[in-house]
Amino acid sequence: MEKMRAILKEKPGRGALLVEIPIPTELAPREVLVKVKRASICGSDLHIYQWNEWARERIKPPQVMGHEFTGEVVAVGSDVQLVEIGDVVVAETHIPCMKCYQCRTGKMHVCKDMKILGVDTDGAFADYIKVPESVLWKVDPSIPAEFASVMEPLGNAIHTATVAKLTGKSVLITGIGPIGAMAVAVTKAAGSAPVIAAEIKPYRIEMARRIGADYVINPLEEDLVERVLEITNGNGVDVFLEMSGNPSALHQGIEATTNGGTVSVLGVYNGKVELDINTIVFKALTVYGITGREMFKTWHVATQMLKYKQVDLSAVVTHVLDMEEWEKGMELMERGVCGKVVLKIND
Amino acid sequence: MEKMRAILKEKPGRGALLVEIPIPTELAPREVLVKVKRASICGSDLHIYQWNEWARERIKPPQVMGHEFTGEVVAVGSDVQLVEIGDVVVAETHIPCMKCYQCRTGKMHVCKDMKILGVDTDGAFADYIKVPESVLWKVDPSIPAEFASVMEPLGNAIHTATVAKLTGKSVLITGIGPIGAMAVAVTKAAGSAPVIAAEIKPYRIEMARRIGADYVINPLEEDLVERVLEITNGNGVDVFLEMSGNPSALHQGIEATTNGGTVSVLGVYNGKVELDINTIVFKALTVYGITGREMFKTWHVATQMLKYKQVDLSAVVTHVLDMEEWEKGMELMERGVCGKVVLKIND
Amino acid sequence: MEKMRAILKEKPGRGALLVEIPIPTELAPREVLVKVKRASICGSDLHIYQWNEWARERIKPPQVMGHEFTGEVVAVGSDVQLVEIGDVVVAETHIPCMKCYQCRTGKMHVCKDMKILGVDTDGAFADYIKVPESVLWKVDPSIPAEFASVMEPLGNAIHTATVAKLTGKSVLITGIGPIGAMAVAVTKAAGSAPVIAAEIKPYRIEMARRIGADYVINPLEEDLVERVLEITNGNGVDVFLEMSGNPSALHQGIEATTNGGTVSVLGVYNGKVELDINTIVFKALTVYGITGREMFKTWHVATQMLKYKQVDLSAVVTHVLDMEEWEKGMELMERGVCGKVVLKIND
Amino acid sequence: MEKMRAILKEKPGRGALLVEIPIPTELAPREVLVKVKRASICGSDLHIYQWNEWARERIKPPQVMGHEFTGEVVAVGSDVQLVEIGDVVVAETHIPCMKCYQCRTGKMHVCKDMKILGVDTDGAFADYIKVPESVLWKVDPSIPAEFASVMEPLGNAIHTATVAKLTGKSVLITGIGPIGAMAVAVTKAAGSAPVIAAEIKPYRIEMARRIGADYVINPLEEDLVERVLEITNGNGVDVFLEMSGNPSALHQGIEATTNGGTVSVLGVYNGKVELDINTIVFKALTVYGITGREMFKTWHVATQMLKYKQVDLSAVVTHVLDMEEWEKGMELMERGVCGKVVLKIND
Repeated sequence: MEKMRAILKEKPGRGALLVEIPIPTELAPREVLVKVKRASICGSDLHIYQWNEWARERIKPPQVMGHEFTGEVVAVGSDVQLVEIGDVVVAETHIPCMKCYQCRTGKMHVCKDMKILGVDTDGAFADYIKVPESVLWKVDPSIPAEFASVMEPLGNAIHTATVAKLTGKSVLITGIGPIGAMAVAVTKAAGSAPVIAAEIKPYRIEMARRIGADYVINPLEEDLVERVLEITNGNGVDVFLEMSGNPSALHQGIEATTNGGTVSVLGVYNGKVELDINTIVFKALTVYGITGREMFKTWHVATQMLKYKQVDLSAVVTHVLDMEEWEKGMELMERGVCGKVVLKIND
Repeated sequence: MEKMRAILKEKPGRGALLVEIPIPTELAPREVLVKVKRASICGSDLHIYQWNEWARERIKPPQVMGHEFTGEVVAVGSDVQLVEIGDVVVAETHIPCMKCYQCRTGKMHVCKDMKILGVDTDGAFADYIKVPESVLWKVDPSIPAEFASVMEPLGNAIHTATVAKLTGKSVLITGIGPIGAMAVAVTKAAGSAPVIAAEIKPYRIEMARRIGADYVINPLEEDLVERVLEITNGNGVDVFLEMSGNPSALHQGIEATTNGGTVSVLGVYNGKVELDINTIVFKALTVYGITGREMFKTWHVATQMLKYKQVDLSAVVTHVLDMEEWEKGMELMERGVCGKVVLKIND
Repeated sequence: MEKMRAILKEKPGRGALLVEIPIPTELAPREVLVKVKRASICGSDLHIYQWNEWARERIKPPQVMGHEFTGEVVAVGSDVQLVEIGDVVVAETHIPCMKCYQCRTGKMHVCKDMKILGVDTDGAFADYIKVPESVLWKVDPSIPAEFASVMEPLGNAIHTATVAKLTGKSVLITGIGPIGAMAVAVTKAAGSAPVIAAEIKPYRIEMARRIGADYVINPLEEDLVERVLEITNGNGVDVFLEMSGNPSALHQGIEATTNGGTVSVLGVYNGKVELDINTIVFKALTVYGITGREMFKTWHVATQMLKYKQVDLSAVVTHVLDMEEWEKGMELMERGVCGKVVLKIND
Repeated sequence: MEKMRAILKEKPGRGALLVEIPIPTELAPREVLVKVKRASICGSDLHIYQWNEWARERIKPPQVMGHEFTGEVVAVGSDVQLVEIGDVVVAETHIPCMKCYQCRTGKMHVCKDMKILGVDTDGAFADYIKVPESVLWKVDPSIPAEFASVMEPLGNAIHTATVAKLTGKSVLITGIGPIGAMAVAVTKAAGSAPVIAAEIKPYRIEMARRIGADYVINPLEEDLVERVLEITNGNGVDVFLEMSGNPSALHQGIEATTNGGTVSVLGVYNGKVELDINTIVFKALTVYGITGREMFKTWHVATQMLKYKQVDLSAVVTHVLDMEEWEKGMELMERGVCGKVVLKIND
């Protein structure tokens, strides 16, 4: 049985190991084997590495880590119809059941019985990954592999932003991690005017500037609401994207949104949040809870924007490391001194 | 100076008085004098009568009460363009400034500098009321005056419900006061299937049945979420309308809404509410805060639905009293043994 | 090899035959065998029977006719996931490729490489039909089989109507064949006010009345545009559904639609149509070309509306015949003295 | 009575005159006097100058020409509320009645009783213009006057483009006159990918390139449909904007649009057009007729895009002439060797 390299969450507790394990060979009728080219590290990968509370409840080691990747189809199951050997692909992390009410009415991304790649199944930090054909999307070969590798979080940014009308609209984005930074790029590319970013960490403030935000506000140094009102002639923003998971950002953003505006929430919060629902009611705000990416509308949009260089992710993909340097990637993320870290798995 | 009857909030404290005061005669260029035919009592009128905390902060006696009404135009200011003497009209309660960003871009109902009829100005529990032309809507004379009088709260129900797609969709409505009952009528008329009502007060449970709900659930006697899932084959409802202002109804309704569904909130809450934002995010719910009625899209819809009998409000307009019996109306509302109470002001 | 009854288009030319042929037994991995319970006759079945120009170009005899049906799953291929033996099902006529841009981005109903059931494959006027699982939709057993059988054309009516906002909106429907009549039922159920039907054939005029149109206009006897303007206070209708395939109905309907209104076209025209595009531009109309049904959003809506009796198709399903009487069904349709004709294939 | 310069269509027949006429002084209660700073020449101004068929039917000389302009408020009527003396403004050309169904339900741009500035009233090629306050929009003073002057046609481009989702979508624009060129700028700014322009005139082909189209196709030299399919991997474009008024462009564009795509038509056609409605039906296209600009949503978007330099109109505003050189402007337009020509009326 042939072997491959894999970054394995071997057992409970902090850490993981780069090991050799067998290449998956048995493919169900609709399964596909992909040779991984690039894979990028998500915040949830770091949580699995750190073994935080969420990971302890959700992950059953041993398991290969990773879910953001691009690669090439090298084998297909007996009944595969969507891809062929040789196709360059990226993959949706959400594995829909295809049977439930949501899946059968065009809302696979909110499947009631969803599995998560690299959480419920072996992941992409390996030479090969086995996935159901339903999650694969063929990617234009002109897109640099480093950018293709991060199309999954880019899709989050696109989905969060594009539920609102963006062109000629003022936008506030709170939380400029990699996805927040991508949201800056997406809203700028979508014609938003102005795009205001709010962030407190110096590295990310700098990243917000480099990716093109019209204004970057540090809420620890300035009054966020006051500053946004000042920029928008007292109106507040049309569109507020909350990507920090910080209740205070949510509160302030809602206050800084204009009457009739929209609020997209991608952030995940640590427990319940005290919310002034009356403000949402009296301002007639629309609040969108955002999960994943629309399959595969969002992926198509991401493909086109990358292909025609409407977004340039150079300022977000700050590090491309060899697979062997993966722990350095984890460390960069822990220290908060990086944007997106991409691992070179194969050429 | 000619006199008219008016129900006046004379001074702070519980109560009000039916008195004679001068008919307003001086009309600004865009103002209109309407002879009131029917006026109905809103929950906020009761609050002013009871002099609750909100009223104490907001109302400056002496002031004529009332804001839901229908009547006839009897005089117009020098520059009035929208109505003529003799027109039968109803009126929007929200007086938009017409100048702000919202007003100039088609969102007058969320005007940033809004005044409220009967709260910031003299109201409609009087033989005559003076209003700016901008709030008037001509009503089809075929609509019974009792129903025309309650088109303002009917508009709330329509606005709350129709932000979502309703036809063939399952709907849960929590809080079957008069507006909730109207929302049952509106969603049934819009083809929702099924329409599930949740209410705890016996009088209102009965009203929910009479107005046509497919199911009426008393959350004190049954598990609301469980029952809704049972009715919807485990999916939950597509559309949830929260009209009770009760945090527990909001929580349970969110739990009972299907992934990708919508939540419309018209209720007003007593302070902040602890909310599980993560559920909204992971279920990808869309939450609409609802204020007022779209000017005048909602009014046009209300007019057509009443004119062609798509909604029948007989089960909601439970009492039509003479103006002199107004205190009996307040008492019925305090005891919770009525739907909508309409006052006959003039024939 | 077991035999079954089938209405077969045996060869080119007028006619068809009720014959015995083998039951399909070999199922591809994703194919399903359904025992047909009820099947209804579509206009295109009549065209195949009559062997009109379209049929001559499109149909390759011998072929089993029919595509509107309901039945029970009796066998499944090795990789079927969506249905199980015993499920009561209805079927989408459009067989999507599942691979193209449209299919992968939630628009299977406009698949670029679509096959049609009963046109490109053997159809449903038989004891058994073999279909890909992708077209099947489980139907609530409480829905009468006669109504389940016509859910495909009902879906056309729903799709055509619900692309527009309907509640409280005025609607004109031209062409009250079975789908037009269903559109009357759907728009009435969706709260449209008023619903105006236009039709010239006496049988259909009567059907329009029975199904509940507020007004029925015969354009040969009255000026359609003038009458619609009169009914709508000079505004014209908000929503126009053209279901006749008659260019003159299209022209008049466009003229009778209010500025900013919508036009849904389901009709198929005999060649090109001279159109006054400038009217569409200056009136700022939105014209929707309608094909099929959204998979399976429309089917879900149809299911709920039938289950909760929001639409009653009794006035449209005018004949239920035994399978052996199928030629009588064709004859009724040729004479234009029926709504929908349903064949009882099996109990 | 004080005099001002004005370019006057004095009498029927080709030509116009730069003359001195009295400054309008009598203002109705809601009228405003604006001192014109810049005004730009529209195609319809050229038609009035040339006295073509449309002009002969529509224009009643003597009348001041021009309707695209920016200026400063210098006097206001007794009941004006929206602007103040000193405000820098631009103006909507469509003067809505404010009373009809459309005007009262948020669709003023398709008013049933609309008047046109510079067509039904004296225009803007003059030192001063008198307009109703309802058409004025305050413009950010940071926007160069030359660009503010052309916000009306820019609004056409924005309105035509933004009825569709644009971000990450492929777009075809036929007809690259000034509005078509602006549509290229708008769709590029909105993140469309790719933006394909089709044009046959050399000057305009060059303008399409300069403004940033990804591809420019000359349908006289290449097969438009074939080329678009090639660029879009055989799919066709998601969004087609027809701005040429050429039936052949409309036909080819429809053919080049993907199933389920959208078609926005701003072009005006010379008489009726033979259209293959069946293609629109079977491809399930949505066709938007576009008139004017949404009041004032579109103007707000235009303001923001100009203020934050999301669109740069330098490649479209090709000539800025002194008012006295106005005939040179007409001549440039007749020869087709210009983009937008702006007249400097006052500093």
